[in-house]
Amino acid sequence: MKANRMEAFSDGVLAIIITIMVLEFKLPEGHDWHALIELGPKILSYIFSFVYIGIYWNNHHHLLHMVRTMNGRLMWLNLLLLFWLSLVPFTTAWMGESHFAATPTALYGIILLLAALSYWLLQRAIVNQHSGDSAFVAAMGKDWKVKISPSLYLTAVLTAYVSPWISGVFFVLVAIIWFLPDKRIEYALRGR
Amino acid sequence: MKANRMEAFSDGVLAIIITIMVLEFKLPEGHDWHALIELGPKILSYIFSFVYIGIYWNNHHHLLHMVRTMNGRLMWLNLLLLFWLSLVPFTTAWMGESHFAATPTALYGIILLLAALSYWLLQRAIVNQHSGDSAFVAAMGKDWKVKISPSLYLTAVLTAYVSPWISGVFFVLVAIIWFLPDKRIEYALRGR
Amino acid sequence: MKANRMEAFSDGVLAIIITIMVLEFKLPEGHDWHALIELGPKILSYIFSFVYIGIYWNNHHHLLHMVRTMNGRLMWLNLLLLFWLSLVPFTTAWMGESHFAATPTALYGIILLLAALSYWLLQRAIVNQHSGDSAFVAAMGKDWKVKISPSLYLTAVLTAYVSPWISGVFFVLVAIIWFLPDKRIEYALRGR
Amino acid sequence: MKANRMEAFSDGVLAIIITIMVLEFKLPEGHDWHALIELGPKILSYIFSFVYIGIYWNNHHHLLHMVRTMNGRLMWLNLLLLFWLSLVPFTTAWMGESHFAATPTALYGIILLLAALSYWLLQRAIVNQHSGDSAFVAAMGKDWKVKISPSLYLTAVLTAYVSPWISGVFFVLVAIIWFLPDKRIEYALRGR
Repeated sequence: MKANRMEAFSDGVLAIIITIMVLEFKLPEGHDWHALIELGPKILSYIFSFVYIGIYWNNHHHLLHMVRTMNGRLMWLNLLLLFWLSLVPFTTAWMGESHFAATPTALYGIILLLAALSYWLLQRAIVNQHSGDSAFVAAMGKDWKVKISPSLYLTAVLTAYVSPWISGVFFVLVAIIWFLPDKRIEYALRGR
Repeated sequence: MKANRMEAFSDGVLAIIITIMVLEFKLPEGHDWHALIELGPKILSYIFSFVYIGIYWNNHHHLLHMVRTMNGRLMWLNLLLLFWLSLVPFTTAWMGESHFAATPTALYGIILLLAALSYWLLQRAIVNQHSGDSAFVAAMGKDWKVKISPSLYLTAVLTAYVSPWISGVFFVLVAIIWFLPDKRIEYALRGR
Repeated sequence: MKANRMEAFSDGVLAIIITIMVLEFKLPEGHDWHALIELGPKILSYIFSFVYIGIYWNNHHHLLHMVRTMNGRLMWLNLLLLFWLSLVPFTTAWMGESHFAATPTALYGIILLLAALSYWLLQRAIVNQHSGDSAFVAAMGKDWKVKISPSLYLTAVLTAYVSPWISGVFFVLVAIIWFLPDKRIEYALRGR
Repeated sequence: MKANRMEAFSDGVLAIIITIMVLEFKLPEGHDWHALIELGPKILSYIFSFVYIGIYWNNHHHLLHMVRTMNGRLMWLNLLLLFWLSLVPFTTAWMGESHFAATPTALYGIILLLAALSYWLLQRAIVNQHSGDSAFVAAMGKDWKVKISPSLYLTAVLTAYVSPWISGVFFVLVAIIWFLPDKRIEYALRGR
């Protein structure tokens, strides 16, 4: 039941994050299509963040269903994840407003990297609750997505200083590999 | 259970969208009724959007109750719908601030058109889960509202360049035909 | 179940309304107590609105528990109520910023009056579902709070042009009579 | 059931408070790391508030599970707590923007002090519902955290005029002693 409430709270925070990002769109000066052009980079960075938060929402849901017993440790690891994600509207707005300048793009990646590491810590703590269930632990151990994402974010951060386009390729890459929900967990849950 | 959670998340996003739109009302300069006049178009566009989001909230609820099995496809189609709706506070503010100028009004219609198309895709994906239940599929196939709305929005978009009043007629028209919840689905659900 | 969802949605909207009002507090110019003085009227009007929304949240909850069958009519009456309440952050900010000038104070009252009338319509529609239960209808018929509130708000609106202090007395009066939840409904519910 | 709904409403308010604080981060002027420096104090005060709200969310959850019968008194004490917490985004922004100047830091502590006192009142009202269960009352009577927090906040308020660093030590101290959920309540609940 308590994991349930943590899920509801996290859902609330994620729903607010995904929605208030739009408050960063300032009204254009003019009233024609031309006036919208400068919104372009903001909208593009909004799309990125919308997809990332959507991915987190979906996978977080799968992950929390694996919780056996709630404790303070899980709660604080979850809040740590939400903390980094709560900074996404700010980094999204800065990256968009700067037209994908190097440092704002790098910061965007750093926050996502820290969120990914927190997610990995949370997953580890939950997997540890299943230490007796070796099949489950083995299945989760093969979770290459969680393992590879931080490196991809780190590459995106570093390449931001070469070109935002190269950096963008890595951001898109992480989105693609996470796009589908984690079938393995779903499979493990059904297999019981 | 998972459809339940998608519903709760969507509800949260819709509740936030409907409420933060008011944050776009800037405080009037003066302190008399005259000072409120320039808020007129903003309030009018807010009323439009409030009604549309209310309609989506209601019909979305009916629709999700038809979900048989949740999957990634439904989740992403639902997020696609929420994405377009999340842009409504922005287009509402721009349309109001511009006193229903042609392009902001057209953009307002385009976003609603894209939301309507996403809703239609979501509905289709859910109906496909009932492919064996020919009575249900037949009943849903008669859903002229979902089919006619995109054309009405498109007409509103195009006529925005003739006159915002003509465009407004089509916006009101869509609101009217959707005003009541989808009796057919309710009927089908009860018929079980 | 559907009344449940309407309740959850309304709760979400009320929670957002009550919280985003604080976003209207602009940061003071200085960093001493003196700089806070001009925030005074804003905080006072925030306290008023916080109490009113709290009262609505509480009574709305009691009211929705009386719903027998959900329908489009109830849903739209509920959305009408939420519409007026969604304007409260705006009227609160304007009233506070104007230091309780006549027109902003009157507008504040008008919006609350319209919310009160919507609440009364919603209550009536729900009571009508119990037309066979004459004891219940009789008990609800004695709901003097719902009947007297609109007149008190109207008086507050009109006296705003005499003095904000007199107007304020009537606003406080409504808050006081609604302060406690509706014992009669609670009593009727238990009596079953 | 009603305590359940109060919990859901409180969760919603806390989720919004924790998320909208980020809206106070203004976009930096430049697009390099240097431009982020002035955000430092804002982010530091955000971290403080995030941790405090997280602590309240967690302990509030434990506390509400002890409620035996809901009544107007509990509801209003809960709203009083939420009222003070709803001011946290404002005091957080002012403290950060002032670079931890004396008065904003003191006000930050005062609001947290008032929240702590409200929490203590709420806890007392709930403990009183268990007056027959002397073991429980005795266990709760030993709740030194709730008793000591107001004095620590008060010290933080007063020392803010000596040095923000000393004040900060006391803020950190309260966070540390509350960091873990109240094991005693959890223990008492299990012991049943």
